[in-house]
Amino acid sequence: MMNVVTAAAEAPKFADLTHHLAPEVLVRKTNPLKDIIRISWENPHLVSLANGDPHHSLYPIRRVEYEVASAADEDPVSAWRSLGASAPTQLLTSSRDADSPRLHQASLAYGHGVGLPDALRTVTALNNAYHTAPHHVATMTLGNADAITKVFRMLGSAGDYFLADEFTFGPMPIAAEAHGVKWVPVRIDSGGIIPKELERILANWDSRRGKRPHVLYAVPCGQNPTGSTLSLERRKRIYEISQKYDLIIVEDDPYYFLQYDPPSTEAHSTQTQKPFPVSFLSLDVDGRVIRIDSFSKIMAPGLRLGWITSQPAFQQHLVRFIDLSSQQPSGFPQALVSLLLDGWGLAGFDRWVRSLRLDYQRRRDFLLGLFQREVAPGGLASVDVPEAGMFLWVRVHLEKHPRFTRKAEEVVEGGRTNARELMQELFEACIRGGLLIVPATVFVLPTETGYEEEGSVHIDDRSNFLRATFAGSEETMAAGMPILGKVLKEFFADPSTARIDATSTVA
Amino acid sequence: MMNVVTAAAEAPKFADLTHHLAPEVLVRKTNPLKDIIRISWENPHLVSLANGDPHHSLYPIRRVEYEVASAADEDPVSAWRSLGASAPTQLLTSSRDADSPRLHQASLAYGHGVGLPDALRTVTALNNAYHTAPHHVATMTLGNADAITKVFRMLGSAGDYFLADEFTFGPMPIAAEAHGVKWVPVRIDSGGIIPKELERILANWDSRRGKRPHVLYAVPCGQNPTGSTLSLERRKRIYEISQKYDLIIVEDDPYYFLQYDPPSTEAHSTQTQKPFPVSFLSLDVDGRVIRIDSFSKIMAPGLRLGWITSQPAFQQHLVRFIDLSSQQPSGFPQALVSLLLDGWGLAGFDRWVRSLRLDYQRRRDFLLGLFQREVAPGGLASVDVPEAGMFLWVRVHLEKHPRFTRKAEEVVEGGRTNARELMQELFEACIRGGLLIVPATVFVLPTETGYEEEGSVHIDDRSNFLRATFAGSEETMAAGMPILGKVLKEFFADPSTARIDATSTVA
Repeated sequence: MMNVVTAAAEAPKFADLTHHLAPEVLVRKTNPLKDIIRISWENPHLVSLANGDPHHSLYPIRRVEYEVASAADEDPVSAWRSLGASAPTQLLTSSRDADSPRLHQASLAYGHGVGLPDALRTVTALNNAYHTAPHHVATMTLGNADAITKVFRMLGSAGDYFLADEFTFGPMPIAAEAHGVKWVPVRIDSGGIIPKELERILANWDSRRGKRPHVLYAVPCGQNPTGSTLSLERRKRIYEISQKYDLIIVEDDPYYFLQYDPPSTEAHSTQTQKPFPVSFLSLDVDGRVIRIDSFSKIMAPGLRLGWITSQPAFQQHLVRFIDLSSQQPSGFPQALVSLLLDGWGLAGFDRWVRSLRLDYQRRRDFLLGLFQREVAPGGLASVDVPEAGMFLWVRVHLEKHPRFTRKAEEVVEGGRTNARELMQELFEACIRGGLLIVPATVFVLPTETGYEEEGSVHIDDRSNFLRATFAGSEETMAAGMPILGKVLKEFFADPSTARIDATSTVA
Repeated sequence: MMNVVTAAAEAPKFADLTHHLAPEVLVRKTNPLKDIIRISWENPHLVSLANGDPHHSLYPIRRVEYEVASAADEDPVSAWRSLGASAPTQLLTSSRDADSPRLHQASLAYGHGVGLPDALRTVTALNNAYHTAPHHVATMTLGNADAITKVFRMLGSAGDYFLADEFTFGPMPIAAEAHGVKWVPVRIDSGGIIPKELERILANWDSRRGKRPHVLYAVPCGQNPTGSTLSLERRKRIYEISQKYDLIIVEDDPYYFLQYDPPSTEAHSTQTQKPFPVSFLSLDVDGRVIRIDSFSKIMAPGLRLGWITSQPAFQQHLVRFIDLSSQQPSGFPQALVSLLLDGWGLAGFDRWVRSLRLDYQRRRDFLLGLFQREVAPGGLASVDVPEAGMFLWVRVHLEKHPRFTRKAEEVVEGGRTNARELMQELFEACIRGGLLIVPATVFVLPTETGYEEEGSVHIDDRSNFLRATFAGSEETMAAGMPILGKVLKEFFADPSTARIDATSTVA
């Protein structure tokens, strides 16, 4: 643990970004027992009656054995799924009777907020393999919800403004709203955040609203819900803007390992896969990127384990917060991932995630195929092909609906349509038809108004999307897409059902 | 999960205590996806393309096997410690190939903030066995630091006052201070919080300071650091005061299961043990007690698992907070405790904790014996016998020190002494002597002044204590107590070392 933390001291001069910290961080005192703990670390010869930890001989757990998939084959996920109970496995053991009981004892004892040394070595090895950020440091987390909300708490308090995609996975902005953060939506297209829209907001910020936004929350790969992935060009441009306007980038990247080739590629193989993208972390010369990774999508969400990568100054405040709140993650998942990476090796891990992305790619292509067959021919909906993640963002061509109309009372003010009402009708029609699919309105970032460019289309009128996942089973997808096709057809054909006569409400 | 949560609806009329909630709780919105999830629960026949969860066939974990201590014997902890590698064990298995793969799958998947249904059943069974609170409900936590800080965040914001023992385990008050809570110390004696001191503070509260304190943080058994345990009479009185002055009692009870008989009892046996104490929870007719339990002391702290028991209205807000922050605990420790209670049975669990308390009782008596032999004869320090917990609170008889004096410049203002300086010297002398032991000053509750009764002795002058733990090994205790005896003797004998001449600083 000590050398991991101490490595921080060797980091190069990152920018001093402590002015981004919330007041709560700055007034948080350190644990008064910390001096005692420090004395104990620095003087291991002392007889200590200081620590109130249960004695390890009293832990009733002798051994934990994990039977996990083997990653020895070229396409281990495929073997794991197709061979069922006879798929090759590997045993990983944490035991007090083993040659080295250190990991077992450490995983069962109290620890330091930064995480178990073995787990930190594991995620540091992953960072070194997939990113270029040798001077950033890792902190273990309870998965991305925990990591994101802790980082938001660290950076934002009442009156602060944060930026995010105009369609965003809702719980995260809501968590920050509760402690007073306000959200500013950035216009997106099929490639994600539009850099010049980001710059427009920052350049034209009206200081009468308050302090200019200082945090950008971004999901660069397979964004939830839109499935978009930022190109390297956009990433670079966004990073430059962040430097110019002094933003912290919170890079939430749970789908980083789930990258897909275009559907046209024949005979997918691990050899021909496109490279993993360049993360904001790898671009981060200033130390203004706080990257958030998770084991949820590549291992299992129930582990509740992930990690934050940041410049050391942010880590220091994060760890102090962790020590005074959730404390470090459970020793079991931390031990498991470190045993797993030891057992598989980095090469095995790489085979697993490349094989996993092939599996999800097959699912994506399966859903796309169904969409092409069952929905697209009607001409009432279309999709972009997601290059990462778990979601298909289905655009509904509402303008073809017989009852699509501009709401008369809204003509003056931006010319709003009845898109929102029609999408709600469509959502309900899907339910009646037997299909649950998520309407875009659920993902609209909660905000004040007035951030849009003059005369731009209202977000409600651009919420003509449905989010469908390809993470589920093929049976579910095969059952769902025909329903969507049928419901769309009926919904667009019949102008009479639940008719909203917009013109009748003219003032 | 559903029936556990639904059970809340059957609860009797608890008092409506929502006015205790912090503003952040009241403005926290619910997850906008929740409606979608609800529709999915209520309509299981729907084909769902809504959930972005990784498919369970992709989790690379086939089986987790825990080899744990057997609890079949009368004194299982003793067997576990003395028999070493040949101690009887029991295998607990979570597996996707088992007869019922439900627990395994649930432990690896996303879940609900309240916790895994199996883990909730487990802790509810423990609550029912050891407390009388059939209408309170349980919520899984990441251990007591997580639980306490979440509850403090739920109840306290800037300008709120909370009450606690004047000597308290420091990190918890510090966590609440960071979000603006101020602490008010309650005078204690060897029996813990003095009820009439609690009432004095509330009855005489000066409203110019702000709102009267509305939360009492209490550690009723084996309090850390003083080792005190509240008698049933005091508990009842404190509960009445809480009703009269509308307090929420946060009952932090990690040492509940570590109860000890007086040292005189010959031939300790599980038969003659005193009963477990009546918790504040069991007295709670109003729903104003939020009880916090942990598996850290009875299983292992590295599990990071515990539970909160509260009235359903508080649970609802807690769970919403959990869903928007740390999320539910890792599935591994949750699966383990539910498998363990199934495997051991409630009777086995009871044997384990009764055997564990005997083990700690032996350690306590061992440390007491050492104290009597190595320290007490000098007449320079004394102890009360702790009835619970892990700590011995050693009173140092500073008034016998040749340099003990009233500080001349302080005579007017309460007659303060040089106790603080002498205790610091003693702490440093212990370190030089080779012993790390924690001085009381580290545990002084951080507060403003002016809560004390007129003319009462300043906290610094009552901080003449050292905290020693008996949770460690007998070797450590055997090495430590002679050092303490020797250092005390030398420190009290030699008036010249590092002399502070208080009189020379007279103004």
